[in-house]
Amino acid sequence: MTKFDEATQAIRVDETTYDVCLDPGYSIGGPLNGGYLMAVVLRAAVDAAPFDHPVSTASQFLKAPAPGPAQVRVEPLKAGRTAAFARATLLQDGVPHIESLITTATLGDAEPDYADGPSHPMPAPEECVQLPAPKAETNMTLSAQMDLRFDPPTLGWLNGRPTGRPESRAYFRMAEPQDPDPYVLALAVDALPPVVFSAGARGWAPTVDLTWHLRALPAPGWLTLIGSGRLVRDGWFDEEVEVWDSAGRLVAQSRQLARVGRG
Amino acid sequence: MTKFDEATQAIRVDETTYDVCLDPGYSIGGPLNGGYLMAVVLRAAVDAAPFDHPVSTASQFLKAPAPGPAQVRVEPLKAGRTAAFARATLLQDGVPHIESLITTATLGDAEPDYADGPSHPMPAPEECVQLPAPKAETNMTLSAQMDLRFDPPTLGWLNGRPTGRPESRAYFRMAEPQDPDPYVLALAVDALPPVVFSAGARGWAPTVDLTWHLRALPAPGWLTLIGSGRLVRDGWFDEEVEVWDSAGRLVAQSRQLARVGRG
Repeated sequence: MTKFDEATQAIRVDETTYDVCLDPGYSIGGPLNGGYLMAVVLRAAVDAAPFDHPVSTASQFLKAPAPGPAQVRVEPLKAGRTAAFARATLLQDGVPHIESLITTATLGDAEPDYADGPSHPMPAPEECVQLPAPKAETNMTLSAQMDLRFDPPTLGWLNGRPTGRPESRAYFRMAEPQDPDPYVLALAVDALPPVVFSAGARGWAPTVDLTWHLRALPAPGWLTLIGSGRLVRDGWFDEEVEVWDSAGRLVAQSRQLARVGRG
Repeated sequence: MTKFDEATQAIRVDETTYDVCLDPGYSIGGPLNGGYLMAVVLRAAVDAAPFDHPVSTASQFLKAPAPGPAQVRVEPLKAGRTAAFARATLLQDGVPHIESLITTATLGDAEPDYADGPSHPMPAPEECVQLPAPKAETNMTLSAQMDLRFDPPTLGWLNGRPTGRPESRAYFRMAEPQDPDPYVLALAVDALPPVVFSAGARGWAPTVDLTWHLRALPAPGWLTLIGSGRLVRDGWFDEEVEVWDSAGRLVAQSRQLARVGRG
């Protein structure tokens, strides 16, 4: 069992209730990363489901939970032959913090009938750059869990040279040896610095809601994350992330609606 | 009150329950259109919410409801200063048919800080084409509610010449005079023929789940719908629709996961 598997573990209490323990190692300056929290919720929801693969997860982020004990309550809504539907709620002290609708199914390994390529090219890994290690007092513990290698222009904001467009692109793997799976993908779709940093915004950019789709089971190796946005307006922005595996297949697609930071 | 306003009306029974009447005029060969059903759910959810604009709607389509009486049950989850969260369930005979998570907020009319253009150009309206009127026995009553003018290649599948890519593009307005609003946008994001028709697939392509975001309040006039997909695989496809208003602003973005028809 990897550290990530352990940090996302959900222990069945009864048919619809799971105990979880939110790990302080996934903090981004205090709040826990939304992708990590979705992975925790999915562990419970998939355990309770008749199918193995969470093909769709739509989450509302109501309130930032604190590290420590929490519960996931799963409410099965319908199970058909092809897919099953459930609601899952992350509760802390009895209060809902994340509300999700999750669809499960069984994905095969058929060849695609139609497949697009990545929406943006990536430079070779050796031309990519890492974020500087965060200072301990910033409480960016998430950084230590992941190995991210960025397309250099999309880190230009760090040195006062944002590209002027909402974008963020990087190769991604877990810091400890771990093959990507649907739970790692839940983390990956929310692992990039907010795309609005490249458009000149700064500061904590809270996710309001995020929907992601699992399109194929990822091959072992590096993932490629291509993040972009279409509109920054009135304090709101969209962030889309496509995730490609080492075999060049689209394995996940996400869109989140988030608030622009006041930083 | 327009016919669409009437067909989507939700009458408050108590704090969390609304009576609705599903209109047979929104049928696509039997089942009612998913966008129409989302509009009905949103009428109730927005009425019960502290904010006016449904900025995010994530819906799971559990079961196709029949035309006739139904109920929407709204469960408020959290109301903050910027946004409020709720769950809404469409029930018929007490059975959940559509499950939704809805975020409401108040959108202003600020100029964008960053805005992309449409992802695909459209020909002039006078170069666009209409679908042939459906035969009465097909029960495609939805067609009569909307005026759609298609980018001609994206209707090539009608004559055995699909483009080979999942795509569908059209100008859209309601058939009766009606300015677009968030409820019309809920219909618009699911109004195009499935994008997989252009990739060679045929037949009923049921939506499994759909998430859409309201990004701005639409100006009066025609809307432009740009539909596309990235991956068709193992019986699943994604369909994204961006909606632009007559002032050239991105007003809605959607992605649905759906099943490929069996022809």
